Amino acid sequence: MIPASAPAKWTATGGLRTLVFAANAPLQLSSGAHIAPLTIAFETYGALNTDKSNAILVCHALTGDQFVASPNPITGRPAWWPRIVGPGLPIDTNRFYVICANILGGCMGATGPASPAPDGAAYGLRFPAVTVADMVRAQAQLIEALGISSLFCVIGGSIGGMQALQWAAAYPKRVFACAAIATAARHSAQNIAFYEVGRQAIMADPDWRGGDYVKHGVRPAKGLAVARMAAHITYMSEAALKHKFDRELQARDEVSFGFDADFQVESYLRHQGASFVDRFDANSYLYITRAVDYFDLAADYGGALAQAFKDSPTRFCVFAFSSDWHYPPAENRAIARALVAAGAEASYVEIETDKGHDAFLLEEPAFESALTGFIDAAAAARGLTLNAGARA
Amino acid sequence: MIPASAPAKWTATGGLRTLVFAANAPLQLSSGAHIAPLTIAFETYGALNTDKSNAILVCHALTGDQFVASPNPITGRPAWWPRIVGPGLPIDTNRFYVICANILGGCMGATGPASPAPDGAAYGLRFPAVTVADMVRAQAQLIEALGISSLFCVIGGSIGGMQALQWAAAYPKRVFACAAIATAARHSAQNIAFYEVGRQAIMADPDWRGGDYVKHGVRPAKGLAVARMAAHITYMSEAALKHKFDRELQARDEVSFGFDADFQVESYLRHQGASFVDRFDANSYLYITRAVDYFDLAADYGGALAQAFKDSPTRFCVFAFSSDWHYPPAENRAIARALVAAGAEASYVEIETDKGHDAFLLEEPAFESALTGFIDAAAAARGLTLNAGARA
Repeated sequence: MIPASAPAKWTATGGLRTLVFAANAPLQLSSGAHIAPLTIAFETYGALNTDKSNAILVCHALTGDQFVASPNPITGRPAWWPRIVGPGLPIDTNRFYVICANILGGCMGATGPASPAPDGAAYGLRFPAVTVADMVRAQAQLIEALGISSLFCVIGGSIGGMQALQWAAAYPKRVFACAAIATAARHSAQNIAFYEVGRQAIMADPDWRGGDYVKHGVRPAKGLAVARMAAHITYMSEAALKHKFDRELQARDEVSFGFDADFQVESYLRHQGASFVDRFDANSYLYITRAVDYFDLAADYGGALAQAFKDSPTRFCVFAFSSDWHYPPAENRAIARALVAAGAEASYVEIETDKGHDAFLLEEPAFESALTGFIDAAAAARGLTLNAGARA
Repeated sequence: MIPASAPAKWTATGGLRTLVFAANAPLQLSSGAHIAPLTIAFETYGALNTDKSNAILVCHALTGDQFVASPNPITGRPAWWPRIVGPGLPIDTNRFYVICANILGGCMGATGPASPAPDGAAYGLRFPAVTVADMVRAQAQLIEALGISSLFCVIGGSIGGMQALQWAAAYPKRVFACAAIATAARHSAQNIAFYEVGRQAIMADPDWRGGDYVKHGVRPAKGLAVARMAAHITYMSEAALKHKFDRELQARDEVSFGFDADFQVESYLRHQGASFVDRFDANSYLYITRAVDYFDLAADYGGALAQAFKDSPTRFCVFAFSSDWHYPPAENRAIARALVAAGAEASYVEIETDKGHDAFLLEEPAFESALTGFIDAAAAARGLTLNAGARA
C-alpha cells in the first residue's frame, strides 16, 4: 500500500509493527530541525474496506501506546481502551479499520530520544524538540503510506484530543469526523506548572546524567516516579481520591509515626510511580510534556481558535467530564464554541462524573453511548454500511 | 515570668529568642516518644497588659516562621503577615500582645530534625514524629511560661488554622477567641497525595542520605526544590496562574524548543523552589508535612468533629477563600457546621477571590475588614479597652 516511490519499509519485529522512512526522507519539524531516519510504530485492528473509507485513527495520550485494543507484547499490559475499541464496541472493529501509532518522541517503537541517532548512539537530549503538529505530521505519513486519503474519524482523549484537533486543523479534507475528548486547545499555566515539576524531578535525578543515561545503563527511575506521581494526582478528581481512599490506612490499624506509606493513597501513588518507570522512558517524558506545553492551536492561526477550523468540512464532537480539573469542561467548551464560530458542524457533550480526567479511560456508560451515537451518525453520513458483525 | 520551678531558661542569640526546657522536663508526644531538651523559638510584638488578657497567639503555616510582623534576622525576609499584624492593623500591636512561635519540628530555632540530639549530632530521621497536637502542646508550655493563663485569641491560616482549632479543642478555657483561616479539620487524600510527592522528591535526592545530610555538609536542595514547586501550585488558583502568567514567555519572543524556562510560570516556579532551599530544612519539611497528614481532629474525639468543641466557651470565626482548592470552602464550612452543632459561638466568612489558598497572605481587603470585625467584637466582649494608639 505504500507508494513505490517512498523510501520507506514496513517491518514487524519483537511484536512491534513499524514503518521506517530512510534517511533521505526526513520529517521536517516545527522547530526547523528534522528527524531521519524516522520510525513510526503502529497497530491496526479490523479491516480496511475496499474504498478505504472506514479508517479511524486513534491518538493516544501522554503515556499511552499503540496497543489500544490488544495487550502490549513488550510490557504485557492489557489494551488501554478496552471498553471503546473492539468488536461491537463504540469503535467497532467489525466495522472500522482502527489505526493507532506511538507518538513521535515516544518510547514504544516510535523515533524518540532513546532511539539511535545517525551516529548510532542514543539521541538523549540531542533529540530535537517536537510539537503536537510534528506528531500529527508523522501520523499523516503513516496514513498516506497506508493508502488512505481521507480518515473516517480521528479520535483521542487528553493529548490525544490535541492531536485530533491538530489533524482537523492541518488536514481538514482528510478528516471526515473528529472526536476530541477531555482536552484543550492550549495547555494552561497550571498544566505547564505541573509538567515542569515532573521535568525538574527527572532532571534532579543524578542518574539522568543530562539525558545521557542510556549509555550508563542506569535509568533515572526515582525522578521519573516522582514525575508520574505528581501528574497522576491531576488525573483524578478530589472526589475520586476521597471516594477511593479518603484517609484509610494501608494494611495497618494505626499510623506508623514515620515515613512508611501509612495511607492507602500514598501506597497507591508509590505503586503508580514505581510501575511507570518499568514501561516508560524518562527523556520521552521530557519531550512529550514539552510538546504539550507548546500546544496552543489558536496561536498558529493568528490567535483566534475559530480560524483554525474556518469552513471546516469535518464534523466534530467534543466530550468533557464534569470533574476533570486537568482539562476542565471550560477548556472543552471553548473548543466547541470556536468550532461553532468557525461554521463547523459541532456538538458538545459533558458527562457528569466524579472520576476526573481519567474518566475517558474508565467505565462511563453515558460517554460510551454518546460516542457511539456520534460515530454511528457520522458513519451514516459517510454512507458506511454496517458489516455483518456490527451492532444491531 | 517563667515559674521559678520550671527547668527552663530564656535566651536570645543570633536574633532568635528562645525558651529552652532542660532534659529533665521532656515534651511528651502523641506517638509516646518524648523530646528533651526542648527549645521553643518565638517572637513577640506589643505589650502584655497588666491582667495578661490581651495576648494573641499567631500560629504560622507550613513554611512560615515566628517573624510574623518583623523581618527575619536569619533569612532577611520581610514579615510574612504585614497587612494583618502591626500598629493599627487588624491584629493591632498597639493594643494586643502578639506571640508567634516556630512550630515543633521546624527549622527557625524550634527543636526539629536539624537540632542536636542528646548525643550531640543532628537528629536527622532519629527525630520522633510529631503531630499538630504536639506542636500545640509545645506552644502551651511557652504560653504558660509567659504567665498567660488565657489567650485572648489564637489565630492561624492553613496549618496555622489547624493549630488554632487544636488549641481550642485541647484547652477550651485558655482560648477566648479562635480564628481559623483557610484550613481543614482533616487533611484530605488529595493533600496527603501532594505531600507524599514532595516527600518522595526529597527522599529521592541522593544528597538526602537517609536524612543524615547534615553531617555530610551537602543538603538535598534539588529534591526539596521539587517538593516546594509541587506544593506551590496548590497554593494558587488556576485562575490566579492564568491571570498572573497565562502562557506568557519569559524574556523571549519565541519558545526555545528545549528545556529552558520558556514560560514565565516555569521561571516563577523554579525561583520558588530555588529560594526555598536557602531558608528551609528538608527533614523539617518531611516531619511537618507528616504531622499535617496525620491531622484529623474528629478522630481524636470519637469521629465526630462537634465533640471536639462540645460546650466550648470559645468564640470562633472560620474564614475561607472561594478559589482555595488546597483547603476549599467546603472543608472550612464543615468546621463551622461542627462548631454550631457543638453549641459554640461561631461565624463563617467566605471571601470571593481568585487568589487561591495564598489569599490569606495577600491583599484581601474584605478578609482584613472581616477579621478586624471579629477581633474587635471579641475584644469588646472580653472588656479590652482601646489603647491610645488603637484605630478610631
